[in-house]
Amino acid sequence: MQDVRRAAVIGLGSMGWGAALSLLRVGFAVAGCDVRAEILQRFEEAGGKVCTTPAKAVEAADAVFIFVVNSSQAEDVLFGENGAANAASAGTVFLLCTTMAPSATISIAERLEAAGMLVVDAPVSGGHLKALSGEMTVMGSGSEAAFAKAQAALDAVSAKVFRLGDRPGPGSQVKMINQLLAGVHIAATAEAMTLAAKTGIDLQTLYDVLRVSAGSSWMFENRGEHIVQGDYTPRSAVNIFVKDLGIVTSEAGRSGAVTPLAATALGLFKEASEAGLGLEDDAAVAKVLAKKSGAVLPGMEGQT
Amino acid sequence: MQDVRRAAVIGLGSMGWGAALSLLRVGFAVAGCDVRAEILQRFEEAGGKVCTTPAKAVEAADAVFIFVVNSSQAEDVLFGENGAANAASAGTVFLLCTTMAPSATISIAERLEAAGMLVVDAPVSGGHLKALSGEMTVMGSGSEAAFAKAQAALDAVSAKVFRLGDRPGPGSQVKMINQLLAGVHIAATAEAMTLAAKTGIDLQTLYDVLRVSAGSSWMFENRGEHIVQGDYTPRSAVNIFVKDLGIVTSEAGRSGAVTPLAATALGLFKEASEAGLGLEDDAAVAKVLAKKSGAVLPGMEGQT
Repeated sequence: MQDVRRAAVIGLGSMGWGAALSLLRVGFAVAGCDVRAEILQRFEEAGGKVCTTPAKAVEAADAVFIFVVNSSQAEDVLFGENGAANAASAGTVFLLCTTMAPSATISIAERLEAAGMLVVDAPVSGGHLKALSGEMTVMGSGSEAAFAKAQAALDAVSAKVFRLGDRPGPGSQVKMINQLLAGVHIAATAEAMTLAAKTGIDLQTLYDVLRVSAGSSWMFENRGEHIVQGDYTPRSAVNIFVKDLGIVTSEAGRSGAVTPLAATALGLFKEASEAGLGLEDDAAVAKVLAKKSGAVLPGMEGQT
Repeated sequence: MQDVRRAAVIGLGSMGWGAALSLLRVGFAVAGCDVRAEILQRFEEAGGKVCTTPAKAVEAADAVFIFVVNSSQAEDVLFGENGAANAASAGTVFLLCTTMAPSATISIAERLEAAGMLVVDAPVSGGHLKALSGEMTVMGSGSEAAFAKAQAALDAVSAKVFRLGDRPGPGSQVKMINQLLAGVHIAATAEAMTLAAKTGIDLQTLYDVLRVSAGSSWMFENRGEHIVQGDYTPRSAVNIFVKDLGIVTSEAGRSGAVTPLAATALGLFKEASEAGLGLEDDAAVAKVLAKKSGAVLPGMEGQT
């Protein structure tokens, strides 16, 4: 098994940034690519090698992490002008970490494999803090050879790697279902906090009781705190769930499955986005519910 | 503070049964009342004193737990024929553990207090296993005097008692919001499992991955296992959530709050109940989603 010590990270957003820093921390040479100049500058200060095109970033990399926002960006950085696929050496392993529709993942993986690359379908979970500490969870699928080539890089960024199949696809499928639950749970947290505010329950007390009760969820614990504190600094933005729940409902529709809760939650995230909250923390979906309910949450205008 | 050692439990269902056994275990004399003869027989075998009317059960009790199914049953066992309120000695403490609309709790508490009783608004959480082990969570509110009189009995049945206010009402309000989250999370678990089954993901694998990911919830961990195993033995029944989400949407409506996810989940539990699944485990809401999706879950007809 080859010890991969040269990596590239395409897309230095919330999760990609954490992965890139985790790789640097354990001694990888890391080339980073992003469209935002200020991010590239910070990355250089952190010890990374700055590249302005995906083609440049992958020239000397054995493992390439794709952390862009959606499948259209992924296709662009891989197969567009100055894309990574043509510039990488044969046998380079590509880790597809973007949350994409499973059908998109499979199509992209096939094109990469046809170009002689190895591919791990590798969506991640855990949030930006786990990304920063190199403790993400990876919902992975791909060949033995791809996992072997990617192992050192995966070790650097993750606490746990699930092996969900020997082909790209199952990783994205499981991630999609994680996002169904996560998106519904964020919207449910927002609905619960709004009802509490409207009926005169102290939100901090509610949070303290329910986080240790049967109504709790990972998202209630995490995003509930944002709502109680009125802090909508984006850790993960409303628009991410417009995309991810959109993937859920459209893939469910293709398969004939009904997803009434995902559809309801998607409607709320869309309303939040249309109300100008798309770049705020996803917990800002609570502002939409509060406004409709005539309730005032911490951090909202009208708060006393 | 008086050391209460004589208790009554009205309603020996899933949670009341666990509370009664927990009281017996620490040395309380416990009188139990239920409409089902076979439950009373089991209770006698466990060392309890069997009573066929609430009035009989509370004659020698200092603390009375009300664990019936809904507010109409609570009114009946308290104020109906052979009801507990007239038979209890003045100063007896009543613990209202039934999940009821906060408005119903307040009205019942006022009638009990007018009759000279002490009242703790005391809905519980934790499930039947925690009830059996005397480790429920109590979302309590009531006067100092009521909590003092109830303390030994509360210690026997619970691991944690939240004190949410000095009057009945807040306990039921917080429990109502817990039920909003719990009900939505059960339905979301069912939706996620159905989508997984429909798109060819192994359910056990999905469960193992998502229970430790950001999509997890208390209910996903608990009810997800029921669905994976196809085990719909009722720990808590579909009809409980028809009732509890009904309370959520009607109290929310009264206050002007919108609860689109609770309303969507309520619709699914109602469909399950109308399909004859009302007395099955609440996870059976998954069967409704699976049927609509043309998916087959473990334990459903057509399963190979």
